[in-house]
Amino acid sequence: MDTAYVHGYTEPETRRLGDQADTLADLLHAGTAYPAGSRVLEAGCGVGAQTVHLMARSPGAHLTAVDVSAASLRQAKARVRGVDFRQADLFDLDGEYDHVFVCFVLEHLAEPEKALAHLKTLLRPGGTITVIEGDHGSAFFHPRSEHAQAAVDCLVRLQADAGGDALIGRRLHPLLTGAGFGDVSVAPRTVYADASRPTLVAGFTRDTFTAMVEGVGETAVARGLITQDRWDLGVADLHRTTREDGTFCYTFFKATGSRP
Amino acid sequence: MDTAYVHGYTEPETRRLGDQADTLADLLHAGTAYPAGSRVLEAGCGVGAQTVHLMARSPGAHLTAVDVSAASLRQAKARVRGVDFRQADLFDLDGEYDHVFVCFVLEHLAEPEKALAHLKTLLRPGGTITVIEGDHGSAFFHPRSEHAQAAVDCLVRLQADAGGDALIGRRLHPLLTGAGFGDVSVAPRTVYADASRPTLVAGFTRDTFTAMVEGVGETAVARGLITQDRWDLGVADLHRTTREDGTFCYTFFKATGSRP
Repeated sequence: MDTAYVHGYTEPETRRLGDQADTLADLLHAGTAYPAGSRVLEAGCGVGAQTVHLMARSPGAHLTAVDVSAASLRQAKARVRGVDFRQADLFDLDGEYDHVFVCFVLEHLAEPEKALAHLKTLLRPGGTITVIEGDHGSAFFHPRSEHAQAAVDCLVRLQADAGGDALIGRRLHPLLTGAGFGDVSVAPRTVYADASRPTLVAGFTRDTFTAMVEGVGETAVARGLITQDRWDLGVADLHRTTREDGTFCYTFFKATGSRP
Repeated sequence: MDTAYVHGYTEPETRRLGDQADTLADLLHAGTAYPAGSRVLEAGCGVGAQTVHLMARSPGAHLTAVDVSAASLRQAKARVRGVDFRQADLFDLDGEYDHVFVCFVLEHLAEPEKALAHLKTLLRPGGTITVIEGDHGSAFFHPRSEHAQAAVDCLVRLQADAGGDALIGRRLHPLLTGAGFGDVSVAPRTVYADASRPTLVAGFTRDTFTAMVEGVGETAVARGLITQDRWDLGVADLHRTTREDGTFCYTFFKATGSRP
């Protein structure tokens, strides 16, 4: 299957996005809790993988979650109750909110700074935005492998070809500043997995990162970015890092800013 | 100047190693404090850049600091008081200690696991080891630059040619486990610098990492690893990341283990 949206809309992919949040929830969501009664917008909620954690940490907030995909929203609705789900394009959103939350969305947009500038107009003065993104250029592992790196590079390339940026994490500070947010603060949130952390090895290295890479194999080979043989070696080497002597490291970035 | 020890022994380099510790001290040393009266060995203290922080955080401990270089030890003695400094090769050390501390040393050794196994023999049963290393493969930055990456790769290559491993951080878990330590735990310590953190931009991005890369320029060009033009572009692009819209990220690893 050759899709434009690099994460696809298939069943296993939906499971993976859920697995990712369940494994990383503490790391990514720590520090994010909205007051009771506050109006919170999640822009690009997808299948609700993050929505469920937002709700759990801010049970008294009024959460509106928006996505452009009706199919994703159906799954999100089945997953989380008490949320006002709406189907809309991010650039068509209106309303006023106290807080906006955006997770793993900007990486897919051709104009992330423009998206941020539009989201800013939805905030009351003094309202805050929280943005979480990964950066595939932050991934490194033991044992090292040129083939595995080539496979990861294919994912980065495909996301770029689809108009996104899989290396966006490192750009969050200039993006939020450029969009006119104030008090911009960005912190790295680094996931590190080795044999002493079997839950992360399985939940992140294997079922999140490596599964995500594997998900674009057919497309990468079909487009001639890599040979099938080299792809297979790369994926095998990523799995190799989950063994007893392997390690894996990846850095997410969490940014906050406020509307002046 | 073409030197085997990649960090050199020159004046600016000595200052850099001091700057590095002063900037990163909180990040690297947090969580390391030894009880009063405990016998602590710092193996490979160099010019004492870390020794000063060890002493500050464990004022009641008996600290023995060892290095193979008499010149480095002279500087360390001038920098820190109350420490028992000794000149010796790591593999010739004897004695018994409650705790061993090793920071930015294994990266220079051809046989780091063997060194760890020897250090283990210096610990009483139940005694602990703390190891801190960087990993130059963890560095990424904005704006991205192939030239800057090529310059960093030269540093990695030179350290490998000298028998070391500038990518050793990711290997700490298997190394300590392989050397026979128990309760091995490794945590990433990620440095992230952007315009909102000017002290880190100056102290880490510019005066630590970029200065370290710049320090091997002459050797890298002399050995034909890179052209002077490309080197200059790479260094300029590293400095470019210190500007208002630039960012820089690097991950250290801190490992602990105990003698069974």
